[in-house]
Parts: sequence; C-alpha cells; structure tokens
Amino acid sequence: MKFSDIPVGASRTDYRVPYADTDMMGVVYYGNYLTYFERARNEAMRDTGYTYAQMEQDGAMLPVIESHVQYQSSARYDDYLTIYAWVEEAHGVRVKIHCAVVRGEEVLAHGYTVHAVMDRKTLRPLRVPEYIKAAVRS
Amino acid sequence: MKFSDIPVGASRTDYRVPYADTDMMGVVYYGNYLTYFERARNEAMRDTGYTYAQMEQDGAMLPVIESHVQYQSSARYDDYLTIYAWVEEAHGVRVKIHCAVVRGEEVLAHGYTVHAVMDRKTLRPLRVPEYIKAAVRS
Amino acid sequence: MKFSDIPVGASRTDYRVPYADTDMMGVVYYGNYLTYFERARNEAMRDTGYTYAQMEQDGAMLPVIESHVQYQSSARYDDYLTIYAWVEEAHGVRVKIHCAVVRGEEVLAHGYTVHAVMDRKTLRPLRVPEYIKAAVRS
Amino acid sequence: MKFSDIPVGASRTDYRVPYADTDMMGVVYYGNYLTYFERARNEAMRDTGYTYAQMEQDGAMLPVIESHVQYQSSARYDDYLTIYAWVEEAHGVRVKIHCAVVRGEEVLAHGYTVHAVMDRKTLRPLRVPEYIKAAVRS
Repeated sequence: MKFSDIPVGASRTDYRVPYADTDMMGVVYYGNYLTYFERARNEAMRDTGYTYAQMEQDGAMLPVIESHVQYQSSARYDDYLTIYAWVEEAHGVRVKIHCAVVRGEEVLAHGYTVHAVMDRKTLRPLRVPEYIKAAVRS
Repeated sequence: MKFSDIPVGASRTDYRVPYADTDMMGVVYYGNYLTYFERARNEAMRDTGYTYAQMEQDGAMLPVIESHVQYQSSARYDDYLTIYAWVEEAHGVRVKIHCAVVRGEEVLAHGYTVHAVMDRKTLRPLRVPEYIKAAVRS
Repeated sequence: MKFSDIPVGASRTDYRVPYADTDMMGVVYYGNYLTYFERARNEAMRDTGYTYAQMEQDGAMLPVIESHVQYQSSARYDDYLTIYAWVEEAHGVRVKIHCAVVRGEEVLAHGYTVHAVMDRKTLRPLRVPEYIKAAVRS
Repeated sequence: MKFSDIPVGASRTDYRVPYADTDMMGVVYYGNYLTYFERARNEAMRDTGYTYAQMEQDGAMLPVIESHVQYQSSARYDDYLTIYAWVEEAHGVRVKIHCAVVRGEEVLAHGYTVHAVMDRKTLRPLRVPEYIKAAVRS
C-alpha cells in the first residue's frame, strides 16, 4: 500500500513511539501494530460523532474476529507516526476497518480488522448501526 | 479450525494467562495473541535443535512481514493454554508458520505469520535453512 | 538482594522471555517486571490452595496501591527465569508481597507490591483473610 | 500527591487510554503506568532541547535502576490523561525523575524512577549532563 491509497476522509491519530513498544531488533514489535490500529479505530469512531465508549454504554460491542497486518517497513523509537483508519465494509452484522501506520508519507504497515456487532448482554449479533455504514470509505 | 486440524508433530508451549493480558471486556486483548504466537514459534525453533537466539548469533533473522489471526473464542484470566506452532510452508526466502491457541481441546484462535529470511548485517534475503524446511508439517 | 535472601517457602514460577518483552536496549523493558511480579503472585496465591480467580468469585479483590522495583541486572531474550514471590506482611486491610526475578542464582530485579483487600461490590476495605496471613514468609 | 503539588515547569504529555492498556478489572493495568512515565520522561527530555534519542546517539544512556508508583485512583478506557514529569534530583551519576498521571485535576498515580547515567559503549558511569541538572524542579 502507498500513501496515495489512503482514502480521503480517513481518520488520523498521531502517536509518538516509546521505548516500551520496541524490541531488541530496535524496531516496534509486530504485535504492537494491533494496538496502533485500535488507537486509530477509537478516533475513527469518535469522528462519527459517537465514541466506542458511548456505543458500549448503549449496549453494543464490536469484538474483533479477524486481524491482518502487512509489515512493509519498520517504525522506530521516537518516530512520530500517523495512524489512519477507515471503514472499508459494513453490511449485515460485520464491519471491516482498514488501518495504515505512516511516517511522513511512508506507509510502514497496514491491515484490517473484522468485527462482529453484538449485543453486550445477550451476545446476539446486531445489525451494523447506520452511523457506521455512513462512514464507509474505499 | 478444530483441534483435530492441528498436525501431529506441532510444537507445544504451555502458558498461564495473567491479568496483564486481559482487557476490560474480561478477555485476552486481541493483540496479545501475536505474542502467544511468538512464544510458540520460539519453542518450535528450539524443537528443531537450533534456537532462534542461536540463529541470530549466526547472522540470520526472520522478521515478520505478514500476520493473520482468526479469533474463534476468548481466552480468559488464569486459563491454562497450550499454544501449538508448526512450519506450514518454507521455500525460497520465505517461511510461513501456523499457530493455534488451545484451551483443553477448544481452539480459541489460530493464524499464521510469514517471515523473510534475512542476513542480519547486509539485510539481504537468504534461502530458508534446511533444518527449517525439514520441520514443515501440514 | 542476593539469592540467599529469598525465604524458604517462597513460591516459584518459571518463565521464558519472548522478544515481546525486550526493548531496543536489548533487555527486558523495565515495566514488564511488574507483569513478572503478577505472574509470581498468581502462583503464590495458588500455593495457598485458593487461587486469585476463586477469591474474586468470592467477592474480594486485591488492587495494587503501591509498587517498587530495584533493577540490579538485565534479563534478556530467551532467558529462562524463575520468579519468586512471598507474602512479606499482612495485617489490617493490607498485604505486602515481595518478588524476585532470578536467572540461575543471580537476582536480576526484586521489589514489592502493596495491596488493599477490598469487597468487589461495595469497594469497602476487608480484613486480610487468614489463609493469606498464614502464608507470611520473611 | 495533589494536583497543586506538581511543580511549575513540569513537562506535559497528553494521552488517550486504549482498550489495550486496561485489564479485566476495567481499569488501566498497574504495570502500564511505568510506560506512561516513560512517555512523559521522553517529552521532559525533549523540553530540555535535547532528546533522549540524541543523547543515545551521543553515546550516553539512562537505564532505570529503581521505580516506585503510588496508585491513588484508577484510569479507565478512553480517559484523556495528562502525564507530568520533572527532574527531582540530579547529582553525581544519578537522576531521579518524578511523574504524575492526571485526569482533569485529579492525580490518579504518581511515582519516580531513578536512572544511572552511563556510557553506552564502556557501560561506565558518567556524570549527569548540565542540561539535565538545569532542568531540576522541586
């Protein structure tokens, strides 16, 4: 993925890499990119005018059922990253969110998570809310 | 994936889930499964008679270029898990390792990582070593 | 602290260091020792014949109100560590648990956590249970 | 510690709590505060006009030899925190940095880390640089 592949309207989160995120290879540990994706998803939700925290209070949740990451280049200590997130697909009871971790205009990693929309109490599937459908960018 | 899909000869690592790995949903945070995969890969390497630490000392490394996880059910605090790992493919300069996180005989999550084999100094690609090829199970 | 300072009867937990725990200095990140301490506390509880998970189900909890770590030497990738834990003090509504992270007979780090004993529902302080008092080693 | 105890001139870092940082008790895991402290120390260094990354390139490092945290109240998912850091003491070959994690004007946790100043190559102690001494606030 190239920087120009990130859709207009994607949410942005800025993030400074601490020592904590690096490993002995001197780069950000591969598992930490899933936390970066989560940070960006949180802000993408906030951009819809409705936070994930509010959605939970209203009784829904979005557990991850699949994750995928392509690692193109390495993020390092003290890098100032921008993490982009956008809703790629949303139909039925599933949402797919794409994320890209960027330094300057270089895409270091990108990938997606697939989420089920569920009722927090009954754990039954719920239809994707309209404000998430409205956020689809591709 | 079902328990019976795990190939005979896969490496096993036992692991007790600490509070640290859980999140406020009461389950293991989705990103931590990639650390579980790494724990299992380390033991899978050790089972070849040649540890990852030794391989690094000999000048090679196996950076992750792709990761994928399917989350089927949730691991919880104090669960005693077994993480299985096996080399699924190994040809040219790439290795694909499959992992499954299991409680009892229930597969909670599974997925794979794809690794490039590289020279640590020159960062040039290297051919997959024979002892890794010999470990392929599928 | 020296190895000989660890009291007879301390609980033991074995642990293999993954890449995930290291940082770019090539050693285990300082914050991860608090997770090591937690792993050891869990096993120390289990050794009393009553796990932390059971204690929670019975309505009590032990939130950490203070932590302290002395870093004496560094743990590294693939080190096989033993983490010792023992109840150092337990009176009134507080418990102090000491932990030591050991490689071979070298104490790499040690320290303590202080916990309040609380009712999970009312969040009121509770007196320290007898089976914890009985576990005091010093 | 109260909000009014934070010295004028302390460095500030803002931080949004992700799910990743929480545990099944619904609050930020106690070990993660040490990562919060690190984030704040990085920015405190940057405020001296000389980043930690630059200091490392110049051949010095500041390994942590002691950490202490007092947990006063809990941070939660999606909280917008401010983490303050200030150099409390700096003499000889040691530096003590105090940090406080704040939500609004409530101090949730605070504590300190003690660092040795060392030469990265020889691992010999170095005297505290003047620009760190000049940053002492108390």
